[in-house]
Amino acid sequence: MKIYLDCLPCVLRQVLEASRMATDNAGEHDRIMSDAIDILGRYKSYRISPEIVREIHRLVGKRTGILDPYNRIKQRDLQTALSIYPKLRSFVEKKTDRLYWALKVAATGNSLDSAVNTGYDIEESIENEMQEPFAACDAELFEQQLKTAERLLIIGDNAGETVFDRVLLEQLPNINLTYAVRSAPIINDATREDAQAAGLGRITRVISTGCDMPGVLLNECSKTFLDIFFGADIVISKGQGNFESLSDCDRDIYFLLKAKCPMISDLLGVGINEYVFEYKGCNREKAYL
Amino acid sequence: MKIYLDCLPCVLRQVLEASRMATDNAGEHDRIMSDAIDILGRYKSYRISPEIVREIHRLVGKRTGILDPYNRIKQRDLQTALSIYPKLRSFVEKKTDRLYWALKVAATGNSLDSAVNTGYDIEESIENEMQEPFAACDAELFEQQLKTAERLLIIGDNAGETVFDRVLLEQLPNINLTYAVRSAPIINDATREDAQAAGLGRITRVISTGCDMPGVLLNECSKTFLDIFFGADIVISKGQGNFESLSDCDRDIYFLLKAKCPMISDLLGVGINEYVFEYKGCNREKAYL
Repeated sequence: MKIYLDCLPCVLRQVLEASRMATDNAGEHDRIMSDAIDILGRYKSYRISPEIVREIHRLVGKRTGILDPYNRIKQRDLQTALSIYPKLRSFVEKKTDRLYWALKVAATGNSLDSAVNTGYDIEESIENEMQEPFAACDAELFEQQLKTAERLLIIGDNAGETVFDRVLLEQLPNINLTYAVRSAPIINDATREDAQAAGLGRITRVISTGCDMPGVLLNECSKTFLDIFFGADIVISKGQGNFESLSDCDRDIYFLLKAKCPMISDLLGVGINEYVFEYKGCNREKAYL
Repeated sequence: MKIYLDCLPCVLRQVLEASRMATDNAGEHDRIMSDAIDILGRYKSYRISPEIVREIHRLVGKRTGILDPYNRIKQRDLQTALSIYPKLRSFVEKKTDRLYWALKVAATGNSLDSAVNTGYDIEESIENEMQEPFAACDAELFEQQLKTAERLLIIGDNAGETVFDRVLLEQLPNINLTYAVRSAPIINDATREDAQAAGLGRITRVISTGCDMPGVLLNECSKTFLDIFFGADIVISKGQGNFESLSDCDRDIYFLLKAKCPMISDLLGVGINEYVFEYKGCNREKAYL
């Protein structure tokens, strides 16, 4: 994928939000925005959006010393998700087609950040989101592949979402599981601590990708991660940032996400805010360049 | 008022939209965005948002030669508004409190641009918007002042909205009316041609402010406009851009608008997307600085 011009105003809006989370000092907000505009001016030197997003968000840490401005939001999201976890789990266990619904729970987790920020009742919002079907769904192929697969890797996205992913992982008992997260805090993405707080450590190995982008740039990842990534029989990539950075990589991947912005929904050929669980083989017809 | 940091990502998003309306040439979109980012870097040298908005939107004309990229949108909005005008007029004429409802029609016109862009059914959207009450309303004071007022000036905002303002103007028969618009096309704001197309020429004098900002910077306005502005007994300012540029000026004004962004709604002390018809005297308590 490439950097879309639409990403530029979006990341500028986002870093203002982050700078306000880090400090009430209006002068610092000004300085961070000025620095961010400087970086935007060099946007062509970045390869993918998550890379410029990281660079711009790093300004908040540099200027304020606050390296994890979204920490409060992440903790709130995690607690919210943990509070509804028992319901999500029993919801899936009552279904005949548990795997499909566990995938739907994991996809719905990808909506948690936006849902939380609307100010709506979270539980009600999640219930509504659960009713939305997948606009594209390769669950049957996934079920087939699961029968012979030995190793499955999930690459996580935001912090609260890890609890929803736990519901999916609990439906995959006879396979070697790995859950990969960012190497350091970036926006509201999950780190190892967040995944552990969600209870993932009890059912899967949790590792860092070695990369601290809101996505996965393979040439920045650790050898440990790359071995697992290329050695896994199945890889599930959660969320937009991972899709943006992995959609043209050299292995087959299932992308599980809510298409929250028009760029991503256009690329996936679905509507805005629709859910996708889509398999992309290496020799795929669509080229996401 | 001042420039809010929140305006910067917003205008960057807007100029990308405008550049796509002007041309399909992706290279030009790139160049316009680069130039826009340069201007954003100097945002402190602008006094109010409408000023930097004008400067950034001018890039589209400079790069593409298209001086009115929103023309198609404006014509569509005007036609849409004209098609529902008979219903709006008869809606008001059936009411006991015609003046209040004519003000509400004019305020609702200020939502037309955003309503059109959502892709919803416009007529249904307008009907829904008409049900929303004013969050702040000085209609009683206005009715009192009308009894002795001889000259009333309305400063228009977007093109389609002029049709809605016509419904209000038709309820003000015994007063000398002037309707002021931008001196040249800027975003989807009304020019003299748009106001004439709405049929305003038959019921009011239509003049240019002399200023081509999406707002009114008094030191750029013509003497003709300034004489009318300071000589009027009542001035009604429509929309956010006019509010941003006139909220701290040296005369009393009624601001009639929908608060479409958090900055404006915070300043007015109302919720986002709420309607306001608010009188600001010169010795007003709130200072919008």
